[in-house]
Amino acid sequence: MAYNILIGQSGGPTAAINATLSGIISSALENSEIDKIYGTINGIQGVLDERLINLRPYFKNKENLELLKATPSMALCSCRLKLFSEPDEVYETILNTFKKHSINVFFYIGGNDSMDTVLKLDKYFKEKEEDIRVIGVPKTIDNDLPCTDHTPGFGSAAKFVSTTMTEIALDSSAYNLPSVTVVEIMGRHAGWLTASTALARKVTGSAPQIICLPEMPFDLSDFLKKIRDTFITHKNIVVAVAEGIKTSDGVFLSEATQSGAIDAFGHKYISGAGKILENQIREKIGCKVRSIELNVLQRCSSHLCSETDINESVLVGKAAFDDALKGNSGIVAIIKRSSNDPYKVEYETADVSLIANKEKKVPIEWIDTYDVKKEMMEYLEPLVQGEAKFYFENGLPKYFSFD
Amino acid sequence: MAYNILIGQSGGPTAAINATLSGIISSALENSEIDKIYGTINGIQGVLDERLINLRPYFKNKENLELLKATPSMALCSCRLKLFSEPDEVYETILNTFKKHSINVFFYIGGNDSMDTVLKLDKYFKEKEEDIRVIGVPKTIDNDLPCTDHTPGFGSAAKFVSTTMTEIALDSSAYNLPSVTVVEIMGRHAGWLTASTALARKVTGSAPQIICLPEMPFDLSDFLKKIRDTFITHKNIVVAVAEGIKTSDGVFLSEATQSGAIDAFGHKYISGAGKILENQIREKIGCKVRSIELNVLQRCSSHLCSETDINESVLVGKAAFDDALKGNSGIVAIIKRSSNDPYKVEYETADVSLIANKEKKVPIEWIDTYDVKKEMMEYLEPLVQGEAKFYFENGLPKYFSFD
Repeated sequence: MAYNILIGQSGGPTAAINATLSGIISSALENSEIDKIYGTINGIQGVLDERLINLRPYFKNKENLELLKATPSMALCSCRLKLFSEPDEVYETILNTFKKHSINVFFYIGGNDSMDTVLKLDKYFKEKEEDIRVIGVPKTIDNDLPCTDHTPGFGSAAKFVSTTMTEIALDSSAYNLPSVTVVEIMGRHAGWLTASTALARKVTGSAPQIICLPEMPFDLSDFLKKIRDTFITHKNIVVAVAEGIKTSDGVFLSEATQSGAIDAFGHKYISGAGKILENQIREKIGCKVRSIELNVLQRCSSHLCSETDINESVLVGKAAFDDALKGNSGIVAIIKRSSNDPYKVEYETADVSLIANKEKKVPIEWIDTYDVKKEMMEYLEPLVQGEAKFYFENGLPKYFSFD
Repeated sequence: MAYNILIGQSGGPTAAINATLSGIISSALENSEIDKIYGTINGIQGVLDERLINLRPYFKNKENLELLKATPSMALCSCRLKLFSEPDEVYETILNTFKKHSINVFFYIGGNDSMDTVLKLDKYFKEKEEDIRVIGVPKTIDNDLPCTDHTPGFGSAAKFVSTTMTEIALDSSAYNLPSVTVVEIMGRHAGWLTASTALARKVTGSAPQIICLPEMPFDLSDFLKKIRDTFITHKNIVVAVAEGIKTSDGVFLSEATQSGAIDAFGHKYISGAGKILENQIREKIGCKVRSIELNVLQRCSSHLCSETDINESVLVGKAAFDDALKGNSGIVAIIKRSSNDPYKVEYETADVSLIANKEKKVPIEWIDTYDVKKEMMEYLEPLVQGEAKFYFENGLPKYFSFD
C-alpha cells in the first residue's frame, strides 16, 4: 500500500521541534511505501483552512534536512486551536481535508494540549471507521509530559539555561558589592527547567544558591530570610525562580500584577515572578538587586543545543514514523531511559489518553526546599551532553526556510 | 631594565575583556624585560586596598590563557570608583601601593569612565615626577569610545544580539496572529548595539522591521503610527529598541517609571523602555505583544563570541603592552580600520584626554528614522565574522578561574 502522510507542529516553539520534523521527513523519504509527504501550516488550523504543502521538493537537497535540525522555532508554524469535546463541523472539515488529500497518517508534534487534539481526532476517526492513523510526537521545554522519561526540546533548553546561568553568575560577581540576581525561568506548574539551573554549580561552585520551583509552596518572608542567611556565606547570590511559583493557597505570586487574561486552553497568562522578587528584595533588604527574565530565548536559542537532545528529537520522530507504519493510532512516541550510567534510551509508545492534558511535575522527594536533590542531578546530567551542530554563514546563522 | 607591571579591569563586563587581559599577560610572559606581573582585584579599588595578586603562577599552563579568552565577566573583577579631580589621600594611597610593589606600568582595561582614571593617574604621576606609565586599554559593548574605530567587546555583543534577534524573529512568527515583539537592548546614549540588530535581516529578510536608537528623538504617537503602518505589510513585527531612547526634550522614555537612583558616575539608572512600549502597544493597538530585555546576556554570553572581536581584543592588549615598553604613558591603545573590503585593522594609540569621559554616538547621517543606512551595515558586517572558540566539558562551559 502507498501511504500519504501529513505532519503538523503545535504549541510553543522549542529549539528541537524542527529536529523531530526532520526525523519524520527523513524516514518518509527513505521509505518506498510513502507517496505524498504533506506539511500543514499552523497545525490543525492549517488542516481546517486547507493550507497543506508538499514537503518532498524542499528536501531533495539533503542539506536542508540538516539545516532544519538547527533551525529555531517551528518551520511549519504553530496554532493553539482546541477542539471541542463533542465532534462538530470543525471535526467534519478536518476529516474532509484528510479525505480530499487521501491522508493515511497524521503526525502531530506538540505538548500536552496538542496531544488533546491527537486524542480527540483519533477517537473521532475510529468512530467514523476511517483508517486515518493519528500519532502524537512529544515536544516541550517544560518536560511536563507523563509516560516519557523526558521530552524532546527539554535537554536543549536545560543546556541553554544552565550555560547562561554560569555566565550570569560570573557577571554578577564582577563587583565587590553584595548583590542578588534573580533569574526567572519558564514553567507554570512544573519546575524541571528551573531545576536544571543546578547544573551550573558544576562550573560556578555555588550559584544558583537558591532555587524556587512551582512544586514547593512559596513563602515570601521565608524566602527573604533565606536570602539574608545566604549572605552570611555568599556575597553575590543568584536565585533561579520558576515563573509559576505559588503561595501555599496555590495562587501565582505574579497574579496580583497581571491582567487575568487567559489563553485558549484556559491557562492564566502569567509572568513577572522575578520582577516581584527583585522589588521585594530591594525594599526589604536594600542590597543591589537585578532580575533577568530569560523569556523566549530559553526555547528558541538553537545556537546552543544539546547534541543528545537534538539526536533524540530526530530519533523520536523516526520512531513515531515506524509506529505508524505498524498500524498504530492514538499513541504517542515516548523515550524510556533504560540505563543512566552509561546513559541509554529506547523508543516506545504510550496511549495518548495517558498524556493528553496531563502534567508531570517534579517529584516532591527530588526537591529540598530551595534546592534539588542528587536524584535530580543524576536525571539531568545526561540530557545536556554534547553540542549540536549549528551553521553560520558570514558570521550569522544559516537556517532552513520554506520561503 | 626589569619592569613590574600591574593590570586592572574596570566598568561593566564584556565577553571580550578577559581576552584583552590574556593578550597583555601573554606579551608580558614572552618578554624577558618583565619581572613581576600583577593583577589588581576590583580595579583601582584593589590598588587602594592593596589586593594585588601575582599572575605568573596561574599561566605557567598556557591552556589557562586560552580558557581565559573564552571566560565571561572579568577575571580580575571590577569597580566603579571615580577619583576626585584634585589629588587627595586616595591618590597618595594608590601611589604608595605602586611604589611599594615597584610598579612601572599600569594597564587599565575599561570604558569611558575607566579612562578617566587613566587620565587622572597619569597626570598625577607626571606632576609627582614618578616614572609610572599608565596605559588605557579599551573595552565596552556600547562601542561609544571616540578615536577607536570600534571597541573590543562590541563585535561579540553585536554577534550575540543579532543572532538572538534572528531566533526571536523566527519564534515570533510561529503563530498565525498579528504580533509585536519589542526587544530592548543596552545603550544609554549610543545606539551602536541596537543598530547591530539590522544584521539579523540578512537571515530573517525583514525583522527587525523597526529600530529605535537613542540618537533619534522618540515620539510615541509617531512610533505607534509606524507600528500600524508596518502591519500593512508584515504580520509579525519585531522592534529593536535601545534602553536609552529619549523624547525630543532629551528625557529618557523610561524615566517616569524609575526611582531616579544614580550611580557613582552620575548616570541615571534606567531600564524598561521595552516594557513601556509593550504596554503602550497593548493599550493603543490591542494586538498580541511581548517585550524581551536582553539584559546582561548581551555582555556576558561568551558561548557566542565573534572570532574577529576576540582576536582583536587579544591584539589590542598586546599593542598596549608594546606601547608601554616604548615609554608611552597617558595613552589608550586603539583600533584603526585601514580597509573595509578586505577588512583590515591596525593598532595605534590616542591621547587618553581625547577618550576619557567622552562618548561617540552613532552619526545621525547613518540613521534613517526607524532604520539604519548602508554605511552602518558596511561598518558592522566585518565585526561579527567568525565564531570564537568556546570550551565545554561534560556538556557545560569550562572557564578559567583564579579560585
